[in-house]
Amino acid sequence: MEPRPLNALRPFTIQRGFTKPTPGSVLVSAGETVVLCTASVDENVPPWMKNEDDPRGWITAEYNMLPGSTQPRKRRDRSKVDGRTTEIQRLIGRSLRAVADLSALGARQITVDCDVLQADGGTRTASITGAFVALVDAIHSVKDQLPDPDRYPLRDSVAAVSAGVVDNVATLDLDYRLDFAALVDMNIVMTGNGQFIEVQGTGEESTFSEAQLGELIGLAKQGVANLTEIQKAALGDVWPF
Amino acid sequence: MEPRPLNALRPFTIQRGFTKPTPGSVLVSAGETVVLCTASVDENVPPWMKNEDDPRGWITAEYNMLPGSTQPRKRRDRSKVDGRTTEIQRLIGRSLRAVADLSALGARQITVDCDVLQADGGTRTASITGAFVALVDAIHSVKDQLPDPDRYPLRDSVAAVSAGVVDNVATLDLDYRLDFAALVDMNIVMTGNGQFIEVQGTGEESTFSEAQLGELIGLAKQGVANLTEIQKAALGDVWPF
Amino acid sequence: MEPRPLNALRPFTIQRGFTKPTPGSVLVSAGETVVLCTASVDENVPPWMKNEDDPRGWITAEYNMLPGSTQPRKRRDRSKVDGRTTEIQRLIGRSLRAVADLSALGARQITVDCDVLQADGGTRTASITGAFVALVDAIHSVKDQLPDPDRYPLRDSVAAVSAGVVDNVATLDLDYRLDFAALVDMNIVMTGNGQFIEVQGTGEESTFSEAQLGELIGLAKQGVANLTEIQKAALGDVWPF
Amino acid sequence: MEPRPLNALRPFTIQRGFTKPTPGSVLVSAGETVVLCTASVDENVPPWMKNEDDPRGWITAEYNMLPGSTQPRKRRDRSKVDGRTTEIQRLIGRSLRAVADLSALGARQITVDCDVLQADGGTRTASITGAFVALVDAIHSVKDQLPDPDRYPLRDSVAAVSAGVVDNVATLDLDYRLDFAALVDMNIVMTGNGQFIEVQGTGEESTFSEAQLGELIGLAKQGVANLTEIQKAALGDVWPF
Amino acid sequence: MEPRPLNALRPFTIQRGFTKPTPGSVLVSAGETVVLCTASVDENVPPWMKNEDDPRGWITAEYNMLPGSTQPRKRRDRSKVDGRTTEIQRLIGRSLRAVADLSALGARQITVDCDVLQADGGTRTASITGAFVALVDAIHSVKDQLPDPDRYPLRDSVAAVSAGVVDNVATLDLDYRLDFAALVDMNIVMTGNGQFIEVQGTGEESTFSEAQLGELIGLAKQGVANLTEIQKAALGDVWPF
Amino acid sequence: MEPRPLNALRPFTIQRGFTKPTPGSVLVSAGETVVLCTASVDENVPPWMKNEDDPRGWITAEYNMLPGSTQPRKRRDRSKVDGRTTEIQRLIGRSLRAVADLSALGARQITVDCDVLQADGGTRTASITGAFVALVDAIHSVKDQLPDPDRYPLRDSVAAVSAGVVDNVATLDLDYRLDFAALVDMNIVMTGNGQFIEVQGTGEESTFSEAQLGELIGLAKQGVANLTEIQKAALGDVWPF
Repeated sequence: MEPRPLNALRPFTIQRGFTKPTPGSVLVSAGETVVLCTASVDENVPPWMKNEDDPRGWITAEYNMLPGSTQPRKRRDRSKVDGRTTEIQRLIGRSLRAVADLSALGARQITVDCDVLQADGGTRTASITGAFVALVDAIHSVKDQLPDPDRYPLRDSVAAVSAGVVDNVATLDLDYRLDFAALVDMNIVMTGNGQFIEVQGTGEESTFSEAQLGELIGLAKQGVANLTEIQKAALGDVWPF
Repeated sequence: MEPRPLNALRPFTIQRGFTKPTPGSVLVSAGETVVLCTASVDENVPPWMKNEDDPRGWITAEYNMLPGSTQPRKRRDRSKVDGRTTEIQRLIGRSLRAVADLSALGARQITVDCDVLQADGGTRTASITGAFVALVDAIHSVKDQLPDPDRYPLRDSVAAVSAGVVDNVATLDLDYRLDFAALVDMNIVMTGNGQFIEVQGTGEESTFSEAQLGELIGLAKQGVANLTEIQKAALGDVWPF
Repeated sequence: MEPRPLNALRPFTIQRGFTKPTPGSVLVSAGETVVLCTASVDENVPPWMKNEDDPRGWITAEYNMLPGSTQPRKRRDRSKVDGRTTEIQRLIGRSLRAVADLSALGARQITVDCDVLQADGGTRTASITGAFVALVDAIHSVKDQLPDPDRYPLRDSVAAVSAGVVDNVATLDLDYRLDFAALVDMNIVMTGNGQFIEVQGTGEESTFSEAQLGELIGLAKQGVANLTEIQKAALGDVWPF
Repeated sequence: MEPRPLNALRPFTIQRGFTKPTPGSVLVSAGETVVLCTASVDENVPPWMKNEDDPRGWITAEYNMLPGSTQPRKRRDRSKVDGRTTEIQRLIGRSLRAVADLSALGARQITVDCDVLQADGGTRTASITGAFVALVDAIHSVKDQLPDPDRYPLRDSVAAVSAGVVDNVATLDLDYRLDFAALVDMNIVMTGNGQFIEVQGTGEESTFSEAQLGELIGLAKQGVANLTEIQKAALGDVWPF
Repeated sequence: MEPRPLNALRPFTIQRGFTKPTPGSVLVSAGETVVLCTASVDENVPPWMKNEDDPRGWITAEYNMLPGSTQPRKRRDRSKVDGRTTEIQRLIGRSLRAVADLSALGARQITVDCDVLQADGGTRTASITGAFVALVDAIHSVKDQLPDPDRYPLRDSVAAVSAGVVDNVATLDLDYRLDFAALVDMNIVMTGNGQFIEVQGTGEESTFSEAQLGELIGLAKQGVANLTEIQKAALGDVWPF
Repeated sequence: MEPRPLNALRPFTIQRGFTKPTPGSVLVSAGETVVLCTASVDENVPPWMKNEDDPRGWITAEYNMLPGSTQPRKRRDRSKVDGRTTEIQRLIGRSLRAVADLSALGARQITVDCDVLQADGGTRTASITGAFVALVDAIHSVKDQLPDPDRYPLRDSVAAVSAGVVDNVATLDLDYRLDFAALVDMNIVMTGNGQFIEVQGTGEESTFSEAQLGELIGLAKQGVANLTEIQKAALGDVWPF
């Protein structure tokens, strides 16, 4: 098999309606990484929002790797949630809320659960990209109960991708092997319209130059643009913009 | 659609090799209940076995419902494992070990993770039936490292099914709606050769007669026999008996 | 001393009013197993029952082994409750509720605490048999506050016993030594009228035949009938049926 | 019934050998307060002692109130141990060790569990007084394995009592009602030879004068002297001094 | 440097207003021991006080040693609070409340946090002495919102000191080295007017005589009298008595 | 007082040797934000490093806000560490390790504890800047035990600063009020030589353009350069580069 170019995404697929209980249920795969994103609607807001004057909704996310998603087997987070899990699920929730109009959602909460079935690098960015699609389906399921029919609860789409410096070359969408080899690791969350939501660049026990930073951002912009097209195609008529 | 007869199983399907990281990975469905059973091999035994004179292996199981597997969304067990989860995962592990020859497995541990993707009743029995298939695939992956090539680590197959008294009628393989309506709920784990491993009959805030007990056991025997055929067909050449 | 016949109970004694603070306080002994069952009445129902339209009561149980009840000393469950404890206390509560008419109890909760002072096998079944007696005493203490004087909150009595296959012989009421040797272990909870509440038969890393299952159930029925007589004698005038 | 004089103990009884699994098992009652003290011997020292040059033993204690020991029912400490429990069990262990010669005990650990069956004030002091007796019985059970037959592992006996200022009068051995009314509450742990081990005097949201302090100490000295006689009578030939 | 006499305090300093966010913020040092005491006012009382008929306030305390306050580094209490910490913070809160008129405080809660920056023995007594000063400053910040301008919420001042028997000599205000060497360790909390709040004397794996008890109490009385003068000087015009 | 220009740092001060127990102890203040950074040396590496072939050291960090560092009072993290705390302490540790040569440190661990005494925005960046200085002092304390005298365990210095878009203007070093108003919040960690270690830009429920990203990075570069000068001046002769 021809190796993919270093500035191209891995094959990215989106399967909507993978399970039935939740209004949004999306299986995404980025190469060998597979994540199930289910979006549930709860007609109650969290307790800390209960006394707000201006009724609005909330969007949150949880992230989890199934024990069999990686080898050696990953222990379940049963007594406490590890730091990496906490960071990732806060990032997913923050990314979705960055494009949300929570007042337009009405007083309800949507929780997007991202459960990794198979992990080969890029699970957090695949989760964000899939979570957006599941969120759109979940909003669609309550579209007749929104407070204002002319005000859609999302202002833009969201997708995310990683990039890194591997063997001194800027590389897009790192799988596990590339991620392990990368000295710099960047995750970028952007909107369909090209705005930034989150830029996280980390020298892995290493540092990086301003030029490298620029190059990685350039690659990621292109990757998110491609992911946006794939989201749009998967959602078809439900694509809200 | 014709309703199924009350003494018949729901459609039961087995898909092996659903994910790649673990040697056993089986997606089972019993009607609308869907469980992913992954079996991982760890070449270390648990700490409490370390000092045993006679080296042998261990087989254990964990059970979990994904948050989106049911509505309303099920909270994750993140600070403590609830009582029902503990009961179920102890049952799954005990059922698999009942047919195992742990010395023949060698000093390694197999963990079968049963993650429920979609819950419509019977998740524990579907987990056991699928876990057996994943366990066989996991054992197959280490067949060249077993201590004695002529001694297979399993003596028999295992499958499980529920039965209950609904509207005064003994009924096989309860889905969520039937389970909710049942006054007596029984889970039976048996081997392919018709031996019992576990019989758990519970009056749900109710009681039952000895005649009803006999009737439910009869139904379950037939159900397990059918499940054994389905397991055998799914495993094909790998079926060990 | 003459060994007891394998189809007979160990000596079973019931001492009511063992401690004073709770309305029910029963010390039961089955051979060398000793359990203190105290039943407390709380004039509040649990939070999840508060908003029910139809006011009713609740009965629940907790189970615990004192550290000195066995050797080597059993550590206290201080950071989390182990799986076995959870299973047992759920079983005790379920068994009591199976004969209860919770509406007739009124909006109050009775908690039966089963604390094992000395463990020699059969602690869960002795707990159930003693818990029923403590429950009757606790109900007696509120008999003038029940919603309907003509509707007693229990429909039947409850007792439980174990049986198992030891050296290929069906044996009643296993002490620790017999339980350890048994390949099949069964716990049966029944009512005074001969109805079943719970049947739990487990092959301990082993399996059993349908004939063995029948034999164990037969033994247990006889054992429960004897225990019911002992409960009746102990409760005297307070026996409700 | 004649009320007891304010400077006299409540009736104090000691029943040795109450349960069988542990070498020390003592049921003590001080008025309506009843505590079961079991002393277990473990032939391993705690991990933090393992690497000490000079092999010695350890004595520790745990304290617990059974849920039915008081009304309203006391919740079990199942997720964390409350502050009061921690304070009391540290006090019991410290008091026993104050008279112990841990080198003479050899490299073994004795754990004394004090489980309160019935609580009517003074549970911590009754626990200490009973724990000493259980400890002597436990040491007796290993007397042939001690490192030096001429060196007994205890130098003196230990007993404890409370005293307080109630309605401006110094009062010995407070039951629950008196303890509730007391503005000053003192617990004193002493040896049979009249040495102090622990003096804890607390103004309960109140203060006390030096004269009151002296009066309470005087009462407690007399109380401990009486308790020592009762311990000596209960232990009979096993009394070590 | 001349060694201090064994009956004298270590140099004790009080710096008010050390940090800005809380109305009371006091850095105290006793020799090399340094504690930051901050007193926060919360205009809500704790939940368990909410339904009291007679509105009153509450005063509580928390105690903590910073990891760098001692060597080797002290681990943070992040999963559970250790027994010693619990004992100390209960003592601090109880000591402050012993002189408080909680009704005069109004329905608000003051929490005094004692964070040890540098530990060289006597951290609990320095915490109490500093906490009193922080509490006075916190009360001063709400003096115009008190329910009755003529009723000050404190009846007396509070200070604390340790004493112990070191090399058979009664010694005041033990630093870490002396505390380690002491066979008897006493902490005394008293008011400015010479009343006792708490007397805690402990034989550290040892015992002590009545004469030694008297000697230690005498030393401590003198120490508290000196500390009261230092508190008074530090508070200047705000000193309430 | 003249307001500071939006492209200037708040006054930043560094006080070394603030407490005595740890070899590094640095009090830093950035405007009204005050953090105590103590660096402890442990001559053992963490357990997971024990079996590495190539002996090397480890550097880690913990972060904590004192309850009185902010109003309303911040509850202590006593049962679990919140997500924000976990993120920050992982960032501090990662930032220090990015410039470290862990083999040159030898088999020892340095833990830098950052305890916030007063919080007014920018606590994580002040922590990093102060932690570097404490780390240099801690390394200095073991300079004679390093494996190779010619190989200093750090390759570069580290400092960090925040920047954000407030009222549409790029602003450096946000205090609490500015941080609250910012729609985009960026934290940048860089070395003294101008390399990047971490870039974290977050739209706070908002998004940002590529031009804004560039502007914020420019400001932060200048801020870190100034902080590096202040670190160099504070360390004087100990400055390692």
